[in-house]
Amino acid sequence: MRSRAPSLAVPAPSVRPLALLWQLALALGLLLLLALPLRAAEPATAGTVPQEFTLENGLQVVVIEDRRAPVVTHMLWYRVGAADEPPGQSGIAHYLEHLMFKATDNMEEGEFSAVVEANGGRDNAFTSWDYTGYFQRVAADRLDLMMQMEADRMANLRIDLSDWLPERAVILEERGQVLESRPERVFSEQMRAALFQNHPYGIPIIGWRHEMETLDDVAAKEFYRAHYAPNNAILIVAGDVDTDAVRALAEEHYGPIPANPDIGPVARPMEPPHFAERRLIMRDGRVAQPFLNRVYLAPVRRAGDQAEAAAFQMLAALLGGSAQTSVLERALTHDRGIALSAWAGFNGNARDHGTFSLGVTPRPGTSLDEAEAALDDVLSEFIETGVDAEQFERVQMQIRAAAIYELDDAGARARTIGADLSVGLTLDDSLGWLETLLDVTPEQVIAAAQALDRNASVTGWLMGEEG
Amino acid sequence: MRSRAPSLAVPAPSVRPLALLWQLALALGLLLLLALPLRAAEPATAGTVPQEFTLENGLQVVVIEDRRAPVVTHMLWYRVGAADEPPGQSGIAHYLEHLMFKATDNMEEGEFSAVVEANGGRDNAFTSWDYTGYFQRVAADRLDLMMQMEADRMANLRIDLSDWLPERAVILEERGQVLESRPERVFSEQMRAALFQNHPYGIPIIGWRHEMETLDDVAAKEFYRAHYAPNNAILIVAGDVDTDAVRALAEEHYGPIPANPDIGPVARPMEPPHFAERRLIMRDGRVAQPFLNRVYLAPVRRAGDQAEAAAFQMLAALLGGSAQTSVLERALTHDRGIALSAWAGFNGNARDHGTFSLGVTPRPGTSLDEAEAALDDVLSEFIETGVDAEQFERVQMQIRAAAIYELDDAGARARTIGADLSVGLTLDDSLGWLETLLDVTPEQVIAAAQALDRNASVTGWLMGEEG
Repeated sequence: MRSRAPSLAVPAPSVRPLALLWQLALALGLLLLLALPLRAAEPATAGTVPQEFTLENGLQVVVIEDRRAPVVTHMLWYRVGAADEPPGQSGIAHYLEHLMFKATDNMEEGEFSAVVEANGGRDNAFTSWDYTGYFQRVAADRLDLMMQMEADRMANLRIDLSDWLPERAVILEERGQVLESRPERVFSEQMRAALFQNHPYGIPIIGWRHEMETLDDVAAKEFYRAHYAPNNAILIVAGDVDTDAVRALAEEHYGPIPANPDIGPVARPMEPPHFAERRLIMRDGRVAQPFLNRVYLAPVRRAGDQAEAAAFQMLAALLGGSAQTSVLERALTHDRGIALSAWAGFNGNARDHGTFSLGVTPRPGTSLDEAEAALDDVLSEFIETGVDAEQFERVQMQIRAAAIYELDDAGARARTIGADLSVGLTLDDSLGWLETLLDVTPEQVIAAAQALDRNASVTGWLMGEEG
Repeated sequence: MRSRAPSLAVPAPSVRPLALLWQLALALGLLLLLALPLRAAEPATAGTVPQEFTLENGLQVVVIEDRRAPVVTHMLWYRVGAADEPPGQSGIAHYLEHLMFKATDNMEEGEFSAVVEANGGRDNAFTSWDYTGYFQRVAADRLDLMMQMEADRMANLRIDLSDWLPERAVILEERGQVLESRPERVFSEQMRAALFQNHPYGIPIIGWRHEMETLDDVAAKEFYRAHYAPNNAILIVAGDVDTDAVRALAEEHYGPIPANPDIGPVARPMEPPHFAERRLIMRDGRVAQPFLNRVYLAPVRRAGDQAEAAAFQMLAALLGGSAQTSVLERALTHDRGIALSAWAGFNGNARDHGTFSLGVTPRPGTSLDEAEAALDDVLSEFIETGVDAEQFERVQMQIRAAAIYELDDAGARARTIGADLSVGLTLDDSLGWLETLLDVTPEQVIAAAQALDRNASVTGWLMGEEG
């Protein structure tokens, strides 16, 4: 993502409560804007069933009709991300995302975004471990132009010296500002590196600095050629459009781009079984408020088989949802009074491995050691006592409400569906996720809690120099 | 290495005192057989200066003449090992080592070793992260035959289904027996995985089981084609030979094999800076005697610049050498009486990153926590007090004695020089290592101890289920 906005998809394990909430919302495929009142009834045209088709060159297309406002969100997702980078070239996926805003054979450097802006729209992009996405939100009658430009840069990207060299300085600067200057982000990076023994999910999306410094046009072009093709992409169009019209436009603009026959199924090195609990202690003078975070390897949502992940999602919602209902917040912040905050999160929206995390920011006067012991206590109590029926219903209600809320936002639906399809789920999986979540039983939640394996976890303490 | 002997080069961080001593010996490039009496004088023909030349196809050759017995050690080292494996194919380097004993276009499966044996010799092979080596020890007049066969399998390996499929079962069985059935080896594997965030040194040489299960003839052939060529190999011939005669034989057998022009300098993903201390706790019911080990990232011996690594080597020798002189043993086992043993080790014989390790096996009744605190105490005291002059001289004398001892063993010299050249050192570096070690000052040793960075370390506890 370019400088106008945060650059990377939120990396998990994220550690700040706010980031975790956002991550949780993403993972739920929902927008949990619970502070806003729920609408009494669904708007007439919201919630239409998304339509799906595939072009002959393999481009998967999803159309979400929502005719209430004359705007459209045009998103192109590539099924490639930081986890697909060649060894030693960490950061190349994100770097290429930046370079996609440079020149093509038909457009000047910067022209893409200038045209979007001149047409009253906004655009941006994001990179995750599993995918890279580009989107524009414009007036519905500009869809034709957006497709033309997006298709152009799928096939005709040019990477000139005058672009790639300064842009490398930009991503290095971004690493400095967004990551290295923030101890909690460095901590998060170190946590992932300790969690993953083999899978490239342990490598930061933005890249290791010493490797970023070696990235160049050759590496970027190679990555582009290897991964950017219609048969490795998903087009999502949401808003004031007609499915047949979208099909015709997609055929016109994307249709002529040939598939890349060398693109096979995504295959990355997977994690071996883990046999030893890991701990990590990071001391940094800039840390004013110590906290601890524990991240476990966890299941992912699988195509046609989302039930296991759903139980972990419900577990996260129960343990660490909003302050009113969260088991951890209630026990640690309110009852025991030892924490400023406590949280839980699950990210099962990944192709290969999910993560489940727990965290506590202790109140001054409480040590991280005490806080961690209390956290473990509460988790044991939870497993022993079982799920509180009333809380369970409340969480189910929140999830249902958030889903209804999302139906009202075509752009949010596009993001959710795009993220789901990009990690290998089907449209049916994506649309069925709410039902799968609501089918989870309290017993399954407890089973998920019991399945959390300390041998496949890292517990990290972030503290000041004196801590 | 085939079943007749341990299969892999000793992986560091190894954790058992015995293994560490062996590792230390390897790292010193010496054989510290101190239990045996030192010979009063050097044998007349020992210690000749090794000769070096390179064939036109890039094969580097070192000849160590030692005419005292009519035997010869013929070693071929490839500058490729487990750290060069494609992602997801861990174990392929070692698997290929096994397959090298199968058929070629000119020999049947098993014929290689049968011929060696029929000629009264013995042969074997080994795989490390940085190299793969093959050797035979035979009567000197059989060198011609050894070269003929070794050159044959450099160029003409055949990998038939009847060989590769059962051999995969063999390496899986080997993993089970040599590694998975031994908690301390699993622990060592987990330690390395936690230590290295980016470099493939974190991946076990033998491979992750789930990846080994997918290895096949296609992967093995590809690895063979990519890396096995004269310009990626070092031939060491040591024993009752004449350099000119060896040159003629090498020209005859290896000379006709063309160089592989696609082989460039070794380049692997390197470690980023580390910012957080890691800890690891492994519980296993089979562990009768808990112990702790700490492994730090450390420098390596660099071509033309070995002084830094030499200081760490001397530090290891002082802290953890033989029981009589070791700082750790004396302080923890004798003075404080809290340890059954304590050790230190350094492995700087690696292409990219070295490791320095410290460990303690506490006496029953002393917890790992107490033992670790005591270890840290002793290390601090050592830094504060400085090096004991008498102990320093004793260690220097031991190193000198071991070097003299090694001069008497042509096979050991071949192994030492081969391991040195395989990681990128020159023959001059290899021959100058003893001098470099003896040039280290006590101040440089203390500086090395001070440079040990907890943020670039993993401290592991291996304990029983109840621990």
